[in-house]
Amino acid sequence: MTSRFDDTIAAPATIPGTGAVAIVRVSGPDAFTIVDKVVTLRSGKVSEAKGYSIHFGAVPELDDVLVFVFRAPNSYTGEDSVEISFHSSEYIASALMQRLFFAGARAAEPGEFTRRAFLNGKLDLAQAEAVADIISSNAEASHRVAYAQLKGGFSKELSALREQLVEMASLLELELDFSEEDVEFASRGRLHSLLNETISHIEKLSASFKIGNAIKKGVPVAIAGAANTGKSTLLNALLGEDRAIVSDIAGTTRDTIEETLIIGGILFRFVDTAGIRRTDETVERLGIDRTFDAIDRAEIVLGVLDRTLPEGEILASAELLSEAAKKAGARLIFVLNKADLGDNKNVINNNLLVSLVENKEDIISVSAKTGFGLDSLQNRLQQLVKARIGDENSTLVTNLRHYEALTEAASALRRARTALSSGVPSDLVAEDLRSALTSLGAITGTITTPDILQNIFKNFCIGK
Amino acid sequence: MTSRFDDTIAAPATIPGTGAVAIVRVSGPDAFTIVDKVVTLRSGKVSEAKGYSIHFGAVPELDDVLVFVFRAPNSYTGEDSVEISFHSSEYIASALMQRLFFAGARAAEPGEFTRRAFLNGKLDLAQAEAVADIISSNAEASHRVAYAQLKGGFSKELSALREQLVEMASLLELELDFSEEDVEFASRGRLHSLLNETISHIEKLSASFKIGNAIKKGVPVAIAGAANTGKSTLLNALLGEDRAIVSDIAGTTRDTIEETLIIGGILFRFVDTAGIRRTDETVERLGIDRTFDAIDRAEIVLGVLDRTLPEGEILASAELLSEAAKKAGARLIFVLNKADLGDNKNVINNNLLVSLVENKEDIISVSAKTGFGLDSLQNRLQQLVKARIGDENSTLVTNLRHYEALTEAASALRRARTALSSGVPSDLVAEDLRSALTSLGAITGTITTPDILQNIFKNFCIGK
Repeated sequence: MTSRFDDTIAAPATIPGTGAVAIVRVSGPDAFTIVDKVVTLRSGKVSEAKGYSIHFGAVPELDDVLVFVFRAPNSYTGEDSVEISFHSSEYIASALMQRLFFAGARAAEPGEFTRRAFLNGKLDLAQAEAVADIISSNAEASHRVAYAQLKGGFSKELSALREQLVEMASLLELELDFSEEDVEFASRGRLHSLLNETISHIEKLSASFKIGNAIKKGVPVAIAGAANTGKSTLLNALLGEDRAIVSDIAGTTRDTIEETLIIGGILFRFVDTAGIRRTDETVERLGIDRTFDAIDRAEIVLGVLDRTLPEGEILASAELLSEAAKKAGARLIFVLNKADLGDNKNVINNNLLVSLVENKEDIISVSAKTGFGLDSLQNRLQQLVKARIGDENSTLVTNLRHYEALTEAASALRRARTALSSGVPSDLVAEDLRSALTSLGAITGTITTPDILQNIFKNFCIGK
Repeated sequence: MTSRFDDTIAAPATIPGTGAVAIVRVSGPDAFTIVDKVVTLRSGKVSEAKGYSIHFGAVPELDDVLVFVFRAPNSYTGEDSVEISFHSSEYIASALMQRLFFAGARAAEPGEFTRRAFLNGKLDLAQAEAVADIISSNAEASHRVAYAQLKGGFSKELSALREQLVEMASLLELELDFSEEDVEFASRGRLHSLLNETISHIEKLSASFKIGNAIKKGVPVAIAGAANTGKSTLLNALLGEDRAIVSDIAGTTRDTIEETLIIGGILFRFVDTAGIRRTDETVERLGIDRTFDAIDRAEIVLGVLDRTLPEGEILASAELLSEAAKKAGARLIFVLNKADLGDNKNVINNNLLVSLVENKEDIISVSAKTGFGLDSLQNRLQQLVKARIGDENSTLVTNLRHYEALTEAASALRRARTALSSGVPSDLVAEDLRSALTSLGAITGTITTPDILQNIFKNFCIGK
């Protein structure tokens, strides 16, 4: 294979700074001759070296280096490539880059190595996007989804779907060929069942986007409840319980504080909200709008209740939270706080309270103050997300672009199904099938445009 | 060669975070079998792989990796070593490290790879220290000094000095052997001249420490002068003129602001000081003590004068600055500021002013406001430092430990010289020579202790 590119790119591939080892990557048709101008090997030349070999050398007056040689097509980009490993200092990195530019390389754009890998057929577009997701994953669950996508799991599934579409198209063609002879009924049944099967497969994939996206970016959990039920104490207790705090994200508003925490390999984003109360008897007028927004964006709502209050007050609060969570389509967990205060109310078994949650296990007694019950709460959070992820081998769609393409494909296929039922001519039905094929092809990049590529790769880091 | 160590260490070698490529290093007798437990190569095994070869593989369920194989003694540490290159994410790095630990590796201590390289004879101690200096160098000049040291320039010089000392010792032995026969005068002359030569060589090396250390840490330049002469404007203008600002160091005191700037490959640390004025006619009582401290630590003082003032005032200020600089042993440059205000005073040629500087070129007209003259000032700063560095091939001592060892060696040799002149018995003289040999040997680690090593390597980064 020869590269589709006639220029040679270079960029640092490791994070810059003072460290043990840093790497600069060079890729393109002149990678070897350019590196030979910059690095003196202890023996021989890079251009004469075998692929997958390592050489000790020096960049004169600058540093001792190791040179890793990759010969096309056996490299990340599919091109002749060299990685130069040196002592990690920004001074050396910048001096080395200068020499590579002087010798004929050009600075790589963000994601340009992966872009070349895609255009040279080393990976498809969904796999290329998985590279970016792998790099930015900071928890087990998001990493696992990204790695499965890199390994081609999603791509294989898409390719099977495309084959089904092609089969349907040929069934339609059969109809067209024999249209005079009234053979349509022979294949119609098969066509319908294939169509239904494909639509439901694609719908299942797009339905996974909500949880897939939450896994990738952190599952949003709103901590809601009346004032003084201990919402902030609960957030602090959760964060304090676990050392795996990823980062503090300064609240974008005065009223919400967002903190991330990894529980059982899943990244959660907890939003602490202002106290809510019923006003004008409508959920829309719930206290502060921002609190409602936070609930609306949540996958899970922790409805915090103060169990030391009179049961009537607890239940009123619970009903309000249930309305809000239902409206948001979020799963509700009641957190009965202040268990340390030693009340003996059996509110946890109250029929009304139980009727407001999907499962009795979504009512959990805790003491944010003493830490009692926090383990159960964390376990429940994990369980709920894992149940939504489903089988480890089932694909989760995590990328908005893929989700949109799947949605388009599904609606084209639903159009085809309606058309088929209402006796629309086969060639018009075939057009819908082609449209669905195009949408699915865009995901793996079978069909693509420079604009799409530009959009995808501009968010990559330099050197990737 | 077999390693002196029986355990295998592992550590990330690149700076952690979200990036293109990251590397984990494994070194020790079980490096290959441990990596074989963690990484599945596309074909074959690490333990069967040739040295200096690259292999594509996967850490199951975690990432696709490249494995770089180095067989003892042809590795950085001199031991069997493996570098694993993966997608740079902290999640993957930490999961990979966990698997390596589980497979039998232990977390490397700071600098432990380089420490093993030293103890396995791959580099001497001065070279090992140069590795740390190379990594932390952020300018051409400091980098060049560190790289020369890594390449063994300093070590070779020290080894020549040690040979001279050994030759002297054998001349002394000759005397002892023939002490009955009065042969001493034959070799005395040679011994004296060798001793003088060696002392002056070592003194030259230790004298280079002042500038060597300044080059390594940034040449300290104090910006001093009376209030309102434009000192801060000058600092800002210097920083603004050049994009190569390395970092802003928050002033440790209210009165001094320190900024670093690379000019012509040399790192300078500019300290802006509070205005000074003469009080009680003594230099010691110069305004604020901290200003005086800053001048005292400076290698160069920029004495800022306001050329729009009456000549008498300018000269009074100039004399004060000259006294302060002289006291500090710093080079003085007069910066005649406010050249934009279009005065036509010929103060620049004033005999008194000229008499206060070493060279007429140390009086420079500038306008911090318009930028006029800043180039000349930067050139002059470069020139002065480069003159002190001397010949590119001459060794600069940059390390306090080396400086102290050289100082000890020189004083032992001076003791030997005195003893020799005053007819002290040869065996006592020989003791001083041995003491000097020990001091010099400590620099390259010919003679060393675990404590010295601990001290040196504790400041290295992990993975180096």
